[in-house]
Amino acid sequence: MKNPITDVVILAAGLGTRMKSDTPKVLHRVCGQPMLAILMEELDRAIDPRSGAHFNVVIGHGRDEVSEMVRGLQKSGRIKAPVVFTVQAEQLGTGHAVKLALEHPSKASQVAVFNGDLPLFGADCFSKFLEAHAAARSSASLASTTIADAGQYGRVLRKGMTFTGVVEFKDASAAQRRIREYNGGVYIFDLKTLVNALGKMKNKNAAREFYLPDVFEMARKLKKNILAYHFDNPTVLGGVNNMRELAQAQSALYRRSAEQLMEDGVFIHDPQHTYLGPKVRAGRGCVIGPFTSIHGETVLGDRVRIGAHCELSDVQIGNGTVVRNSTVAEKSVFGKDCSVGPMAHFRPGTRLADNVKIGNFVELKETSIGSNTAVSHLSYLGDAEVGSGVNVGCGFVTCNYDGVVRDGRRKHRSVIRDNVFIGSDCQVVAPIEIASGSFIASGSTVTDTVKEEDSLVVARTRQVTKSGYAKKYRK
Amino acid sequence: MKNPITDVVILAAGLGTRMKSDTPKVLHRVCGQPMLAILMEELDRAIDPRSGAHFNVVIGHGRDEVSEMVRGLQKSGRIKAPVVFTVQAEQLGTGHAVKLALEHPSKASQVAVFNGDLPLFGADCFSKFLEAHAAARSSASLASTTIADAGQYGRVLRKGMTFTGVVEFKDASAAQRRIREYNGGVYIFDLKTLVNALGKMKNKNAAREFYLPDVFEMARKLKKNILAYHFDNPTVLGGVNNMRELAQAQSALYRRSAEQLMEDGVFIHDPQHTYLGPKVRAGRGCVIGPFTSIHGETVLGDRVRIGAHCELSDVQIGNGTVVRNSTVAEKSVFGKDCSVGPMAHFRPGTRLADNVKIGNFVELKETSIGSNTAVSHLSYLGDAEVGSGVNVGCGFVTCNYDGVVRDGRRKHRSVIRDNVFIGSDCQVVAPIEIASGSFIASGSTVTDTVKEEDSLVVARTRQVTKSGYAKKYRK
Amino acid sequence: MKNPITDVVILAAGLGTRMKSDTPKVLHRVCGQPMLAILMEELDRAIDPRSGAHFNVVIGHGRDEVSEMVRGLQKSGRIKAPVVFTVQAEQLGTGHAVKLALEHPSKASQVAVFNGDLPLFGADCFSKFLEAHAAARSSASLASTTIADAGQYGRVLRKGMTFTGVVEFKDASAAQRRIREYNGGVYIFDLKTLVNALGKMKNKNAAREFYLPDVFEMARKLKKNILAYHFDNPTVLGGVNNMRELAQAQSALYRRSAEQLMEDGVFIHDPQHTYLGPKVRAGRGCVIGPFTSIHGETVLGDRVRIGAHCELSDVQIGNGTVVRNSTVAEKSVFGKDCSVGPMAHFRPGTRLADNVKIGNFVELKETSIGSNTAVSHLSYLGDAEVGSGVNVGCGFVTCNYDGVVRDGRRKHRSVIRDNVFIGSDCQVVAPIEIASGSFIASGSTVTDTVKEEDSLVVARTRQVTKSGYAKKYRK
Repeated sequence: MKNPITDVVILAAGLGTRMKSDTPKVLHRVCGQPMLAILMEELDRAIDPRSGAHFNVVIGHGRDEVSEMVRGLQKSGRIKAPVVFTVQAEQLGTGHAVKLALEHPSKASQVAVFNGDLPLFGADCFSKFLEAHAAARSSASLASTTIADAGQYGRVLRKGMTFTGVVEFKDASAAQRRIREYNGGVYIFDLKTLVNALGKMKNKNAAREFYLPDVFEMARKLKKNILAYHFDNPTVLGGVNNMRELAQAQSALYRRSAEQLMEDGVFIHDPQHTYLGPKVRAGRGCVIGPFTSIHGETVLGDRVRIGAHCELSDVQIGNGTVVRNSTVAEKSVFGKDCSVGPMAHFRPGTRLADNVKIGNFVELKETSIGSNTAVSHLSYLGDAEVGSGVNVGCGFVTCNYDGVVRDGRRKHRSVIRDNVFIGSDCQVVAPIEIASGSFIASGSTVTDTVKEEDSLVVARTRQVTKSGYAKKYRK
Repeated sequence: MKNPITDVVILAAGLGTRMKSDTPKVLHRVCGQPMLAILMEELDRAIDPRSGAHFNVVIGHGRDEVSEMVRGLQKSGRIKAPVVFTVQAEQLGTGHAVKLALEHPSKASQVAVFNGDLPLFGADCFSKFLEAHAAARSSASLASTTIADAGQYGRVLRKGMTFTGVVEFKDASAAQRRIREYNGGVYIFDLKTLVNALGKMKNKNAAREFYLPDVFEMARKLKKNILAYHFDNPTVLGGVNNMRELAQAQSALYRRSAEQLMEDGVFIHDPQHTYLGPKVRAGRGCVIGPFTSIHGETVLGDRVRIGAHCELSDVQIGNGTVVRNSTVAEKSVFGKDCSVGPMAHFRPGTRLADNVKIGNFVELKETSIGSNTAVSHLSYLGDAEVGSGVNVGCGFVTCNYDGVVRDGRRKHRSVIRDNVFIGSDCQVVAPIEIASGSFIASGSTVTDTVKEEDSLVVARTRQVTKSGYAKKYRK
Repeated sequence: MKNPITDVVILAAGLGTRMKSDTPKVLHRVCGQPMLAILMEELDRAIDPRSGAHFNVVIGHGRDEVSEMVRGLQKSGRIKAPVVFTVQAEQLGTGHAVKLALEHPSKASQVAVFNGDLPLFGADCFSKFLEAHAAARSSASLASTTIADAGQYGRVLRKGMTFTGVVEFKDASAAQRRIREYNGGVYIFDLKTLVNALGKMKNKNAAREFYLPDVFEMARKLKKNILAYHFDNPTVLGGVNNMRELAQAQSALYRRSAEQLMEDGVFIHDPQHTYLGPKVRAGRGCVIGPFTSIHGETVLGDRVRIGAHCELSDVQIGNGTVVRNSTVAEKSVFGKDCSVGPMAHFRPGTRLADNVKIGNFVELKETSIGSNTAVSHLSYLGDAEVGSGVNVGCGFVTCNYDGVVRDGRRKHRSVIRDNVFIGSDCQVVAPIEIASGSFIASGSTVTDTVKEEDSLVVARTRQVTKSGYAKKYRK
C-alpha cells in the first residue's frame, strides 16, 4: 500500500499562561532549542519530503517570533517539508484552530495534528502512530497514555478495550476524572471525516470552545473506525504547561542522550546529572565527568576524557584529548592528544592542532595553535596565529585592540611563527609578527614586528638593587 | 473571639550527640542559617508583636553560643517578639525544661512548645495549628504526622480517630512501636492546665526523665479536651538528629524555594540540584543553570540569566544581565544588561553600572565600575572607582597595597575617570587618579597621578631586537 | 575450629562485550580504581596472609594489562596474599576456567570463586559468607540475592526454603525465569568436591559451555550439603556488564563513603552528588559543599570546610582550613587555618604551612609556602620555595623555564626568603634567590639574585605623561 500524504498541523498559538512568561509557550527552550523546533525536526524526519505533505503551523500569541523561528529552521535545512502558517487571532479552541488551518490548499488525504508543546514525541513515535492508524483503517485516531494523575487532560473513554470517545476534564464527571488514560493531544484524521466533522462542530461545553476531540464522537456516530493508540511510555506525550514540566521534559531529553551514549560505550560518571544534548556524538572509550554539560553538535573522538563541571558547545575534539575540570569551550576544534584546562576558556574560533597543551586561566579567541605548542598559564590570545613547537610563558597577552579602528578593523592580528620561545609576562602589540625561532625575554612588551628568524627580543629595564633601602622605605 | 496571648517556648538545650559535633545542635546550619534562627523567624511571623507574647528559649549545652545567636536575630530585626532565656543546667527531660521556663513572668494564657530542631515548620503551619487548637477548645494539643518508619519518636495513640495519649518509644510495646503516627515535638497548652500538670509530673519511666507528653494523660484524666493535630505533609515536622537528616532538611528547604520560583515563572534547569535560598527573589523570564547556588537576599531582575556552577550570595542583579558559568559573587550590585564571567570573582563591595562587561579570570573588590566599561580578561581591581566608557586591557592590576600603612589605611584607592583606555599588562600604583580620556600604553606601571585629560602615558622600555642572538643563547 | 585455608579464584578473563570498550572488563574504573583492584583489596583484608592461601586470577582477554595491574597491587602492598595467574585462552565457561585454575599447586582445602566484576562485595561480605559456609558444613555454597528483575543471571531453585540448584537463564523455563532470586557469581567449594565435580562436568546446555554451577547438582546427588546464602542487600552482588551498571556501582561505592562520613559527623550538603572516595578521611566538624569530588587518600583535619565544585585528590588538609569553590588540588599538603581559592589550582608537590592565603586564579606546582604568607591573585609559582610572612602581589610569575636545559634540568628553582614584599606584576627569572625583607617594586622583572637583606629592587621604566597626546593618537 502506498503511504497516504499526511499534512502536519501544529497548534502553536497558545500563550501558556502558567509559564508566567513573556515568551510564547512553544518557544521556551529545552536542551537549548525551542520546544517547537525539537518537535518539528523529529516529525520532519518521519515525512517523505517528496510526498507533497507540508507543515501547517497555527500561530497566535507571539506569532512573529514563532514564525520567524520556524523559517529559521527551514533556512538552515533543519526541516525539509514545506511550511505554511495559519493565524488564529482568537483562541476559540482546537477545533477552530484546525478548521482555520484546513483553509490552506493541500494535496493530503489525511492530517496529523499536534500540540506544539511535545518536545519528547520523536520521529519513531510518529511512524508507529501512522502505522497503527493505517492498520486499524481508522478515520480518527488519537495518541493516549496512562499516568497516576492525568491532571487537567481530557480523559479517554473505553467500553472494555474499545475506544468510545474523549471527555474534556472540565466537562468530566467525578468518575471520569478518576480515569488515568488521557488524550495526549496528538491526532491523525482522515481529511474528509475531519472536514465534515469540523463543519458541524458546536461549542456547547463548559469552556465555550470548539474541541477537536469532538470529531471522535461525530465519527463514531457515522460508524467510522476510531482509534485511541496507547503509548506505554508516558514520557513521549509529556506536555509542557509550566516551568516544572519544562525542566522535566528537558531532563528526559538529556537522559535519553545519556542512555544512548552509555549504550555506545561512553562512561558517564553521573548520567542523571550530566547534560548531553541530543546531537552530541562520541567515539570509543570516552569518559565524561559529573556535572558537565555538552551541547550543540559536539563530537568527541575516541578515548576523549572530559572532566567535571565543563561546558562545551559545538566543539570537535580529537582522539585521546583530555579536557580538564571547569573548562568552557564554544565553537572550537581541538586536535588529537591535547590537554586543556582546568579552568580554561575557549571562545569561538579556537583551533588547536595535535598535542597542544593549554593550561589554567587561559583564554583563547579566534586563534589557531600549532602542534606541540604549550600555553600553560594565565594568558589571553585573541585573533592570533601561533605556530608549532612554540612555548608561551605565563601571563602572555596579545594586545589585539588599541582603542582605534584601523583599515576598518577594531581588532588586529598577531602571528607567532614556529619554535618561538616567549618568556613570562610578555605582550605583543598587534598587528605584529614574530619570526620563527625567536626568543622573547620575560617581561617584554613587543611593539615591532620581528622579521628575522632566531632573533633575541628584549624590552625591559635593567634591575637596580639598593641594599637596605627596603628598611628606609618602610619607615 | 480575640486571639489568646501565646508564649513560645523553644527547647534548645540539647547537645545532639548523634550529630557528632562540637557545635550545639540547634546552631547547625541549613541554607546558611542556624536551624534555630530559621524556626524562630518563621514563628515570629505568626506572632502579633503587640500581643505581649514572648519567646522563651531553653538553653543548656553551648548556652552562650545559642543565646548570642538569638540576640543577634533580635538586633538585626529578624525577630520582633521579645525573648527571654531559661537555663536548663541538667537535662532532666522536656517536662523539666518547660517547668523551668514557666518561672518567667508572662502575660500569656497559653504556651506553645517547640523542639529547636524543626527548620521546616513554617509560620503557616503554626497558624493552622493555633486555629485547630482553638477550634477544638483543646487544653493540650500536639502536632503529629505519619511516616513509614517513625524511628525513635514517641507514638500517638488513638481509639478509632480519638486521640488518647502519647507513648515514648523507649516505653512502648512492640505493637505500639509499629504505629506510624508520631509526636512531632510541637505543642500548644492552656497555661493553667500545663502548670497544674507539670506540678504533679513524675519521672517513672525507662529514661527517668520528666516527659512533657505526660501532660496529655493528666489532662485526659481531668476530662479536658486534648488534640493530636495531624500534618499530612511529614516534611514540616522533620526533626534533625544527625548529619543525614540535616542534609535532608536543607534539601527540602531548597526544594521549597525552587518550587516557588518555578511557580513564578523562573526556568530552573535542574530544580533538585540548584540551591536557591528561601529569600532569593527573581523577576520575569529568568533562567538559572544547573549546579548553581544562590544565597542570602539575592534579587534577580527580569530576564536575568545565571549559568551553571555559580555561587551568588547577597547580590542584586539588574534586568537582562547575564552571569556566566562558575562565577562567584558576594555582596555586590550589578546593573542592567551586564555580562559577567565565566570564572569571574566579585568580592564584597562590587558595584557595576549598566551595560558593563566583566570577562574571565577577573577579580573585583570594593570597586565601582561605570556604564559601558569593559574589563574583559585576567585583572584585579580592588578599592577602585572606574568611570564609564573605560576599556581595561588584559592583565590590569590596581596595586592597592604596598606593605606600608599610610594615614591609617592599609589599602589605597585608584580612581580612573571616564573614557580612559588602558592597554594590556598595566598597573596603577595607588593612591592614584587617571584623568578622563587618557591612554595608558600596554606594559606600563603607572605610579604618578595623571592630572590632565587626554594624556598619553607610557612607562616601558623600547624594544631591542638582535638578529640571530636566540641561536647563540640556546647554546 | 581452625579456619580452613581458602584459595580465592577470580574470573577475570572476559571481554565484557556489552561495555563496548577496548579495555578488559575488569579494568574499568570505579572511584578511580579498576573494579578488579577494588574487589581484590577487599578480599585480601579477609584473608590471613600467614595461612598459605593465595589468589588465583584467571585471565584471558587483555591478559597482559590485567596481570600488570594485579602485580602493581602487590608491589604497592595493597594486597598481601600471593597471586598466581591462570591463562584461559578459550572462553569455554566458568567450569572450564576454574578447572584450569586448579592445576596450580595449593595448600588450600577449600576454594572461593568470584566474578571479577563485583566492586561492591566487601571484606565483611566475604567473612560472613565464609562463616555461613562453615556453619552449614556445606560442600558447595553460592551467594544469592533478590531483585525485581534478575535479567540474564542464573536463577536459584528452592523447594520451600531448601536450596536445590541453579539454572542458567538460557536454559531456564518461563516459570524459572520469573524467579527473582539469582546466583551472584560468588562461590565457596570444598576442594575435593569441586575437583571431583569438575572432572565429570559436561557442556550439554544451550551455550555449550562448562557451567561452574553444575557442581551444585553433582554435589546434591552425592548427598553433600549445599547452600545458597542470601544477601539481603542486593547492591553487594551488583555485577557490571555495561556502562550504566558501571556508573551505578560507582555511585553505590561513593554513597557508602558519604554515609560513613556523615555518620562520623561530616556535614555533606548533597550526599548523593558529592563524590567521596572510599579512602577519604575527615575529622570533626567538617563541611563539604555540593558537586565536589574528593579522591585518593585525602585527609581532612577538624573543622575543614570544602566549597562546591572542588576536585581534590591525595591532599592533606590541616585543621580549620577553608577550601573555596572550584578549587582543584592534587598531591598537596595544606597546613592549619589556611584559606585557598576560589578557582585556585594546586598541582602535585604543593606544600602550604599554617595560615597561608592563596586566592583566585593562582597556580602552584612543586612549591612550598611558609606560614602567614599570602598569594592572593592571578599568579603562578612553580619550583619555588617561599618563606613566611611574604606578600606576593597580583600577577607574579616564577619564570622557571627558559627553553634551555642547564645542568640537566629543564626547570629552575626560585627561593624567596621570609618577609619579602613583592609588588604586582613582578617576575623572578630562575634560578634566583631573594634575600629576606627585600621589597620588589611593582612591574619589575627580577633577573639577578638579591643577596642582601632588606634590599629595594626596581626594574622598571619611569613614567612619561604627555598632555593631550591621547587625542592626537586617536586621530
